[in-house]
Formats: sequence, structure tokens, C-alpha cells
Amino acid sequence: MAQTEPRIAIVGLGLIGGSIALAARDRLGARVSGYDPSAAALAAAVERGAVHEPADSLAAALDGATAAFVAVPVGSLPGVVEQTLRYASEDCVVTDVGSTKRAVVASNEDPRFVGGHPLAGAESSGIERARADLFEGATWYLTPRPITSGMLYERLHRLLRMLGASPAAIEADVHDAILASVSHLPHVLANVVVEQADQVLAEGDERLPATGPSFRDATRVAGSSSAIWSDIYLANADAISDALGRSISALREVEQALRRRDREWITDWNERAGATRRRLLEAQLAGGALFELRASVPNRPGVIAQIALELGRAAVNIVDMALYPAPDMSEGVVALWIAGEAQAERAESLMTALGFPVARP
Amino acid sequence: MAQTEPRIAIVGLGLIGGSIALAARDRLGARVSGYDPSAAALAAAVERGAVHEPADSLAAALDGATAAFVAVPVGSLPGVVEQTLRYASEDCVVTDVGSTKRAVVASNEDPRFVGGHPLAGAESSGIERARADLFEGATWYLTPRPITSGMLYERLHRLLRMLGASPAAIEADVHDAILASVSHLPHVLANVVVEQADQVLAEGDERLPATGPSFRDATRVAGSSSAIWSDIYLANADAISDALGRSISALREVEQALRRRDREWITDWNERAGATRRRLLEAQLAGGALFELRASVPNRPGVIAQIALELGRAAVNIVDMALYPAPDMSEGVVALWIAGEAQAERAESLMTALGFPVARP
Repeated sequence: MAQTEPRIAIVGLGLIGGSIALAARDRLGARVSGYDPSAAALAAAVERGAVHEPADSLAAALDGATAAFVAVPVGSLPGVVEQTLRYASEDCVVTDVGSTKRAVVASNEDPRFVGGHPLAGAESSGIERARADLFEGATWYLTPRPITSGMLYERLHRLLRMLGASPAAIEADVHDAILASVSHLPHVLANVVVEQADQVLAEGDERLPATGPSFRDATRVAGSSSAIWSDIYLANADAISDALGRSISALREVEQALRRRDREWITDWNERAGATRRRLLEAQLAGGALFELRASVPNRPGVIAQIALELGRAAVNIVDMALYPAPDMSEGVVALWIAGEAQAERAESLMTALGFPVARP
Repeated sequence: MAQTEPRIAIVGLGLIGGSIALAARDRLGARVSGYDPSAAALAAAVERGAVHEPADSLAAALDGATAAFVAVPVGSLPGVVEQTLRYASEDCVVTDVGSTKRAVVASNEDPRFVGGHPLAGAESSGIERARADLFEGATWYLTPRPITSGMLYERLHRLLRMLGASPAAIEADVHDAILASVSHLPHVLANVVVEQADQVLAEGDERLPATGPSFRDATRVAGSSSAIWSDIYLANADAISDALGRSISALREVEQALRRRDREWITDWNERAGATRRRLLEAQLAGGALFELRASVPNRPGVIAQIALELGRAAVNIVDMALYPAPDMSEGVVALWIAGEAQAERAESLMTALGFPVARP
């Protein structure tokens, strides 16, 4: 019976919980029950059609469920997962979607629990922006343990594939160390760049001098939502501290090389960083190596449209794009990242034909 | 005579030197002489019409010039400026365009020399990409000294206005300290994030795990051209070292707050960074406060075109734009920065009408 019409319980109906509900409804034909302590969130989920059965308690939501997704803030996960396991049946797999994994994984020894983390949708929040295709192609980390039920793990893996995601098993501590370095550390550094600039600018003129596009780019994630990030910083405090400790050592090395004016060391270090970055990014791309194209463009409405439209017409997909405007925004450099040599060459000739000759850095 | 047809000498015909030459020709009606040790660069400048009088020596280039722009790499500036001053007439203002200012300013005591730094065009290089409008609206820092000739400074200031730039006087040490914090430090940190990620990933699986869009964004300037950046790092070594020293102290504070799990400290620090960044960016914008809009979009050709075209049609100017794709590039979040409340609201309603509901982080 569970095989023919899966029953999915969603605990916490924000962006991620709501998107799982919509995907489960559309792609699995599942019967979805939902619980959220906020009556407004629950009502919105019903209105969007994400939840067939709104529940007035956790116990009611879990009644008959074969899989339960806990999608609450990282700080609340251990408690809510524990309660969920209490009400879930013996045959129900329970998972979560938190950005850090060790704390919640260590909080129970239940064979029905598998930690999870979809790499999707962290940029906005709320059931209003939930989408059935949010997980299409996204890596979805899972942290199985020796005690994990093989049958329940297999069921969860299959469910995630059906939601459109690519499940990938990883140890909780490796997951948290990697995320500390590739996501949490950059957030800390962005905040520190802002602090530094503020200190230096305060020492100078009253009028704030031009900071330029590199400042804006380097600090884009500075001051990200504390409601989300304080939990993440705290839950992954030791891994982030370790990453900070290693970064401090690395910065000391750079500082010393600069103080002794060691050109050879600086050049080697800089070349190595460029080569390593290319290797790390290229390894992840199915579409082939990533090529960066840069061109100067006037910064007025329509120019980016023109470029994007022209490339779109030729079916050249812009993997990533960034504009670096001049301080007064009158002109700028547009950078496009294109996957694959052939597509990059096509993009280059189209850009040139539009009157924007391309540089490859 | 000099007043009726200015004679401008350009020493070093790369992107910046070539663009000054083109702007001087088009906007000042100047007679332009040029010198470059590379015969190919000189020939290309003549072919582009940037230089009327190619010179086979520095002395020949400076013959009769009323203003000379030295546009060579930062490491060569002191020597080339010294030679330029030797051949320039008593009535010729000599300036440079380097990204760091103290070394070249300290290298001479000549009243005819004014250090300069246009905030433009660092993204690509070569005479091929030179443009007469490169400096339109750009801040152009100038570092006059007590010994500077008032008449020559006034002439240079006027020339820069005619090239389209906004000249702004600043002390050389303040300039270098600011650039160390807002430009050079972010380059160092990007390299360090790459190093950290590489170390952590090497400890894990053989297969490289997904790093996500925040890694790509945080490391965009990692490994920038060593031909340019080794000179900048060395020329500004002490100011960058100071910025690194302050950053290390700041990172230690964060590390300690994390190790003692101090949620209040972390939240305050994060909120402050967000508020400071908004204040720094808004202070520079003539168009009013900068508003950030985020929306989830499918990552396929044409979507960005559609958004940009729609906003362009409504004359809403996108000051800055960034795409944060999901790891497999199937979908992503687009962030737009719009200046002014009214324009941002217009953009928000247009995006919503297109089916991309907007979040304001």
C-alpha cells in the first residue's frame, strides 16, 4: 500500500519544505501531510495546494507517513527531529534539510533517521517562493550511518531521485568541513572586508571615496540574514573556527612574504590559486571546462538584454554572468562564464559581432 | 599656441594609454605623440588612429608636449616617470595611471609631476580594447603635493574633465590604504578561500564534491593576472600587510566568539556588517539608495534576456546583476541591484508579472 501511494509528511513549511511538498505531489503522486507551528504558513501551504492534509499536531502529520522531511531552522533541528522520530511509525524514514549535519546526526541513534542537505534555494525564503522544480539536478547530500536501515535509506534515495535531485552520500563531519570552507568561510570574510573598509574610510576624508566594483563583488554576501546564519555559524562553530585558523595561518604567510617583498613567493602563490580554482570548478561541470569571457559595454538599459538575447537565440547558455560597472555606472565590464570550448567560441564571435570585443583573462 | 592645439604625449600604449590617446584625439582635438618600447604596440596604436606621431624615443615623444601620461606597469613607474621628467619641457605636466601611488610619488620631487589613478579598465588589457569613452564618469584620483605647480595641476584637472572623468584629489598614502582594503585585500582573500577549499577537499573523497555558487562567487578574482598583480602587491606591500594584520585580528575575534558559542556577538557582528555595507555603497550612488532584488529563475537561454529586456523597456537600469546557479546549472537565483526606491518598486512589479516573485533580502 505504501508503495502504491506514498504518504509524505513535511514538518516546517518554508521554501524548502514547501518545495518538497509540491515536488512530492507532482512527481511522486504522493499524498502530502504537513505541519507547521505557524497557522499562517500552514494555511498558505494548503492554499498553494502543497499540502493535502494540514495537521494540527506533529503526531497527526506523521500518521501513516512512509517518509518525513524536517525542514526547520538548523538550531531547532535536533529537538524537532527527536519529536518526529517519536511519532513516526517503525516503517517511516525521517530526514532533515539543514545546512550543517553533525549536530542533528549526533542527536539521535535511530536507524530510521538519515541526515540530508539539498544544495538549493538558500537565497530566499517562505512558502510563497516554493517550487516543484527547486531540486531539479541539485546535489542532495545524505549522511547515512552504520546504524541506518538499508531499506529506509534506499527508499529515501529513490524518493530524492524522483524529486529530481542527485543524492550523494557523505560523512557528516566531511560535509560540515567542506561547507565551512566553501560557504561559511566566504561569508565571514565578506563581513571582515566590510569592517576593514569602514575602518580605513573612517580614518580618511568625511566624504566617502569611491570603492569600486571589486569591493561590491567581494562583499556581496556580507550581513546575510542573521535568522538563518547565526544558527549555521553556531551549529558549525568548530569547523568554521578550524577554517578560520587555517586562513589566519595562510594570511600570515602572505603578510610575511609581502613584508619581505618576496616577489617570487607572491607570484607562485597567485598562479597556484588561479590554477586550483579552475581545476575545482571544471571538475564539477558536466558541460565541459568553464570559459570566462569579458567585454567592455556601456551601462545603459538594453545592453545586457541585447547580449543575452543574441546568445539565447544561438542557444549559447550563460552559466554565470557578472557586471562590473564603473563607479558612476556609466559603463562597465560584463563577464560571462560559458561551459565548453565550442559554446565559448560561438559566444565570443557573437559578442564581437555586436561590437563588444572579448578578452579571455 | 599650446592652448589652441594641445600636444599630448602617451608613454606606454596599452589599454589605459591607448584610451587616453583616443579620448585626447576625439575630445580635446589634441595632437597625440606616443612611445612604447614594443614596436608592435606602437604600430597598433598608429593603426587604430590613437597616435598621430609615433616616436622612436622617449625624448622624441615628449618634444613640444604640454602634458604627458605615463601608462606602464606599476613596478616600472618610478624609472619611466623619472626619464619622462628628464625629457619633458618646463611647461609640461607629467602624470601616471598606476593602481598604487606612494612609490611613484616618493620617487621624485618635481613640481611638474602629479600622480594619478583612473578607476577604470582594469579588467582587460591591450591597445585592441582601448576606447575613447573608457573614462566617462570614472573617478580619477590625483595626488598633488605641496611642491606641485598650481598651474600644471589646474591644466591636468581640466584635461581629465575633458576626457570625461571626475578628478578627485587624495593623499597618496590615503589612496593606497583605501585601495589596500577595498581592492587588494579582497584579491588576497579570494586566493586564500581557494587554498582552504583545496586543502579540505583533498582530505575528503577522491571525487570532488559540489562546492556551490557561493564558492565561485567568493573566488572570482582569485589568481588574477600575475603580470599586473605581483607589481601591485609589491608596490603596496606595507598597506596590504597592515590590512592583512587588521583582518587577522578581526578573524581571531570571530574565531573566539565561535569557540565560546557566543550567539549574541555573532548576530551583532553580522548585522553590523550588513548595515555598514549598505551605507558604504549607498553613499557613492547618485541615483539614490541601492535596492537588491532576488528571484528564482530557470537557468536556460533567454530568461535573463527576458528580464533585462522587460526592465530595459521600462527604462529601469540594472546597476548590477549576478546569477547564482544551482550546482548542475538547471536553475538559479538572479540578484539585481537597482538604484532608487521608485525604480526598485517598478522592477519588483515587472519581475512578479513575469512570473518571478521577488525577495528583498
